Amino acid sequence: MLSGNRQASPPVWMMRQAGRYLPEYREVRARAGGFLNLCFTPELAAEVTLQPIRRFGFDAAILFSDILVVPHALGRSVRFEAGEGPRLDPIETVAAIDALPTQADAAIFAPVYETLRRVKQELDPAVTLLGFCGAPWTVATYMIAGQGTPDQAPARLFAYREPNAFQKLIDILIDASIGYLSAQLEAGADAVQLFDTWAGTLPPEQFSRWSVEPAQRIVSGIRARIPDARIIGFPRGAGALLPDFVERTGIDAVSIDWASEPGLMRERVQSRVALQGNLDPLALIAGGDALDRAVDGVLSNYADGRLIFNLGHGIQPETPIAHVERMVQRVRDYRG
Amino acid sequence: MLSGNRQASPPVWMMRQAGRYLPEYREVRARAGGFLNLCFTPELAAEVTLQPIRRFGFDAAILFSDILVVPHALGRSVRFEAGEGPRLDPIETVAAIDALPTQADAAIFAPVYETLRRVKQELDPAVTLLGFCGAPWTVATYMIAGQGTPDQAPARLFAYREPNAFQKLIDILIDASIGYLSAQLEAGADAVQLFDTWAGTLPPEQFSRWSVEPAQRIVSGIRARIPDARIIGFPRGAGALLPDFVERTGIDAVSIDWASEPGLMRERVQSRVALQGNLDPLALIAGGDALDRAVDGVLSNYADGRLIFNLGHGIQPETPIAHVERMVQRVRDYRG
Repeated sequence: MLSGNRQASPPVWMMRQAGRYLPEYREVRARAGGFLNLCFTPELAAEVTLQPIRRFGFDAAILFSDILVVPHALGRSVRFEAGEGPRLDPIETVAAIDALPTQADAAIFAPVYETLRRVKQELDPAVTLLGFCGAPWTVATYMIAGQGTPDQAPARLFAYREPNAFQKLIDILIDASIGYLSAQLEAGADAVQLFDTWAGTLPPEQFSRWSVEPAQRIVSGIRARIPDARIIGFPRGAGALLPDFVERTGIDAVSIDWASEPGLMRERVQSRVALQGNLDPLALIAGGDALDRAVDGVLSNYADGRLIFNLGHGIQPETPIAHVERMVQRVRDYRG
Repeated sequence: MLSGNRQASPPVWMMRQAGRYLPEYREVRARAGGFLNLCFTPELAAEVTLQPIRRFGFDAAILFSDILVVPHALGRSVRFEAGEGPRLDPIETVAAIDALPTQADAAIFAPVYETLRRVKQELDPAVTLLGFCGAPWTVATYMIAGQGTPDQAPARLFAYREPNAFQKLIDILIDASIGYLSAQLEAGADAVQLFDTWAGTLPPEQFSRWSVEPAQRIVSGIRARIPDARIIGFPRGAGALLPDFVERTGIDAVSIDWASEPGLMRERVQSRVALQGNLDPLALIAGGDALDRAVDGVLSNYADGRLIFNLGHGIQPETPIAHVERMVQRVRDYRG
């Protein structure tokens, strides 16, 4: 799948495709007893990972998990309360970073690897199995703020004030990510995706230090252990900084958000690596002509090159299933 | 000021420079009895407009007002409650758009023009006086959602579902903006700025329709009345879509946000128009070495061309005044 497709219709899957818009997901979620329980119970996590493949025949299955399992494995309290985003105990001092363990607790991750083994066994070999983790910058923003905030300003401010301590946090997250993603690949993932959801909030110098360099070190670290590892980046909102990200990290593919400028993306990104994206998730909620135009827009912008059709961000809970079916059909019917 | 400066230090001012970080502003705000009262009382609005000029010697004064005075003049309820963002009665139906007046109530704007006349009288002629309004897309996002939301999704979804009704709303806002900005120029503003704070949430096709086309029509409409009108755009987050915005609108200058990629901005934007920006407001909160490096970064990226030194977004209330003084001094000391 990671080579994209220049001939017939491009491969297609959706970020957060195992999610609340699916009744079969909501049923499993209700009996899992808490979001982290769902992530850490291989039988249930494997089931929800496979649900969207059965329903829509997507070309990729993505591990059901969350980017905040890494802080959880570093001993931080992580809570998912109903109707709110995640909550962590915020890191407000240099001392709190100094008190972090340098290694994640491997036992926490064991059920994730078991989930991947189970999914791999049940999955049609033609379907790509993806693992993932949050990129260090994005994970750090939640660890510092204790939650999602507009522009994740608390972490950006902390990094300006205490760059050495912040670098120490990033270094811990880089090491944890290398171990975690490598083990996901060894457990059966065909590729892994690094989600840097908050990369677009960084000025160029900080983007280089907190998004590009960590991604480069993670790619190198994984490939030192697994030379042919395939890795997808997603520095969301990177815009014109994306070509530099691709060049310096040596990543195999990148996701792009829905606001990307097509000319730059084709000439300076898709010319080097496969592109994944970038339908506006709100067009998928709207459906009808707006959806058809948006799907056609992605295809006309990018399907001449290596494209993995996807959304520009995760699917939202209120999305009608019929709109997903319409999108998949329209992508499958595409003939260049 | 709008020509920027290629020789000595660039002109400097700050978005939201009349604001809560200043004790003299808080004092006037406390006795104004409500935010809209402050905007619509020329004596007080003129006073807070002039305060940062007296304190810091900025090269531009910007009218103290708010982008939501336009929906207010279209008969919508606009409330500013303490500790929260603005609240409007949301527009949820096509009928609510059909019920809007096609013309803003000119009497609402009269005190704004009086504020500009008063400021102009008191201001050193070497200081540029700026007026402003919100761009139609950004104003519409607040009118639809009734408040600020992450990514202003309600308006984007409304525009997908009801493009004709949404176009009608945009058309009303374009007409109101042309009248309002033209009258600001006639009342003494040397230039006006069009704030499209939420432009970066739009996919390219929607950016073209809801941000570029309205800006182009506003620029043309103003220049039909005032041929030498000078207009600054700020489609925040436009990234690689900014060159097209500049080319199609015929605008005189653009503000850029702190996450902009310098190479693209220099080669494809600053080569055509003056750039205004783009210090990260969080670097200004942090102060010290982080601030010095961030100031030097803006200067080294852009001061060889036409630059108006500014922030990449508005100054935040918790910013220490000493940091603003340090920033201004460092810009003034710059010698190319």
